[in-house]
Amino acid sequence: MERFGRQSLKMSRPPAVESYAAAVGKKEGQGPLGALFDLVSQDTLFGQKTWEQAETQMQKLALQAALEKVGLCEKDLDAAFVGDLLNQCIGSNFALRDTHIPTFGLYGACSTMAEGLLLAAIGIDSGAFRRTLTLSSSHFAASERQYRFPLGYGGQRAPTAQWTVTGAGAVLLSHRGKGPFVTAATVGTLVDCGIKDANNMGAAMAPAAYETLRAHFDELSLAPEDYDLIVTGDLGYLGSDLVRALFERDGVKLGTRYDDCGCRIFERKAQDVHCGGSGCGCSASVLCAELLNKLRSGELQNLLFCGTGALLSPVSTQQGQSIPAVCHAVAFSSERSV
Amino acid sequence: MERFGRQSLKMSRPPAVESYAAAVGKKEGQGPLGALFDLVSQDTLFGQKTWEQAETQMQKLALQAALEKVGLCEKDLDAAFVGDLLNQCIGSNFALRDTHIPTFGLYGACSTMAEGLLLAAIGIDSGAFRRTLTLSSSHFAASERQYRFPLGYGGQRAPTAQWTVTGAGAVLLSHRGKGPFVTAATVGTLVDCGIKDANNMGAAMAPAAYETLRAHFDELSLAPEDYDLIVTGDLGYLGSDLVRALFERDGVKLGTRYDDCGCRIFERKAQDVHCGGSGCGCSASVLCAELLNKLRSGELQNLLFCGTGALLSPVSTQQGQSIPAVCHAVAFSSERSV
Repeated sequence: MERFGRQSLKMSRPPAVESYAAAVGKKEGQGPLGALFDLVSQDTLFGQKTWEQAETQMQKLALQAALEKVGLCEKDLDAAFVGDLLNQCIGSNFALRDTHIPTFGLYGACSTMAEGLLLAAIGIDSGAFRRTLTLSSSHFAASERQYRFPLGYGGQRAPTAQWTVTGAGAVLLSHRGKGPFVTAATVGTLVDCGIKDANNMGAAMAPAAYETLRAHFDELSLAPEDYDLIVTGDLGYLGSDLVRALFERDGVKLGTRYDDCGCRIFERKAQDVHCGGSGCGCSASVLCAELLNKLRSGELQNLLFCGTGALLSPVSTQQGQSIPAVCHAVAFSSERSV
Repeated sequence: MERFGRQSLKMSRPPAVESYAAAVGKKEGQGPLGALFDLVSQDTLFGQKTWEQAETQMQKLALQAALEKVGLCEKDLDAAFVGDLLNQCIGSNFALRDTHIPTFGLYGACSTMAEGLLLAAIGIDSGAFRRTLTLSSSHFAASERQYRFPLGYGGQRAPTAQWTVTGAGAVLLSHRGKGPFVTAATVGTLVDCGIKDANNMGAAMAPAAYETLRAHFDELSLAPEDYDLIVTGDLGYLGSDLVRALFERDGVKLGTRYDDCGCRIFERKAQDVHCGGSGCGCSASVLCAELLNKLRSGELQNLLFCGTGALLSPVSTQQGQSIPAVCHAVAFSSERSV
């Protein structure tokens, strides 16, 4: 592993994406990526009794699908890096409690998939692990009642609000394989520009995304043109426009090579999602369906996947605090070395 | 890094403990370790307006004290591994939001200090980072109102209940230095033996501690006698008795070389703590005051530090779920190689 600047790393032995899978809810299945998900449940409870247990079930389904694609089982995994949005990460902890996989719990809000991939890649590159799982999820109904209001309350949504994706993504990284590969990464710092509106998380997270992208390009001597696609996690329409504007201030046009997973997963108008998708499951399921497929097929040669997380809680909002945010960037390439 | 069995690792370049510090509350200062903490606040709000902000302040104080001891500042840290018990880990996220330190958020409940040390050690051994921070905390009043009842309610405590430590610990690991050193580690799996009583977390966590210790000894061909001291995080009196009993079933007597941080931090009777201390801050502050001091002074040559976490939430309890638990073990030695 080689360090570049304060935040960036290049892998010495780039870990390979061995398998991946995404399980999502009905609304996500009706969106533009619907046909790409491994599993679309028409039942938002996924056969369980509660939304939280549904989220656990969704993680189990994504993990099982990822394992089955390559004929592996849980005992083949040396470590798991998992997390979600639920208090005390019960989605993940209950999904993995019967698996006997050595497990690291993460809390990076909606940046969890990127954070987990980054730590898994370090672990594999170091020789600590041969094969890892990164697993993350969110569930619209579980999130709404935890962060905002119970759905039955029928609260009106602000124009800047985003729609929490019901989805889970699982990625298996391995010390060997035909790729795509994780080649480099940039670890995010916590950025708080003073946004206090918990219904405008795109604006709260955009400066963190900008700072991490800026560090990635500067420290690794890269430019946006070095990537076929740069995606942020779940800034949505407003947040991703802000990232574009912040780069334009520097004289850099991100153009169509930049997009946001929250803008890709739903039809903005037809699906009434206001500012787009959000939640740990947003970037996780878009990565594990559309993006890794495109790297496998050759449609993309390289991808910069930037998970973004708003690190607030309802309590911090009630106490008048602004919203710290983080963004971790993970570079994928169809080639082992770039 | 070398792998042993399913869960254990030996460091190739054992990271050194460069500095550490603990900040605690008044009650902890009155306990048997009181004189060892770097900072004891007589004000349980640590000068802040809320318990949650007090927890953030405690983390900042522990970090600053650890940095000052060795004349370092925040920009000298390549990565931070942080977490706490508050929903969405706001203790840690708000502590680090102004620091510009590349940050990984963790959720391992009370195992967070051990989990963070383990990941930091992998990161340093791999060359990804030269110097890391691991930081964790808990606050009695913030925990009580989040997990149980607001303090003003005056709810009676069960005999098996533990007292959440108000404390924070910060450890700086470095790729060089005179130690003590992190030499080996065992990553925990999630263990759920069906305990549903959220007021008996010692019993819920004891099987996880036993499983991780068992794996550590078996995979690394070690015995309890290879350590001067083995401590679990916060099993308290009941949970640590269960660990002893589980080992006795195997014909192994842990004896006085085994103890629990939750039994060391308070005077059981005089401080009315029922089954002992708990919380992320329990093992973090005991490690960063008593235990690392004893490794430095030579009173201990080696230590097995086992963070234990109960991965429940109030919601999972309300939904009738049992309690998954985890235990991560980190071996410290005053010598670089063992």
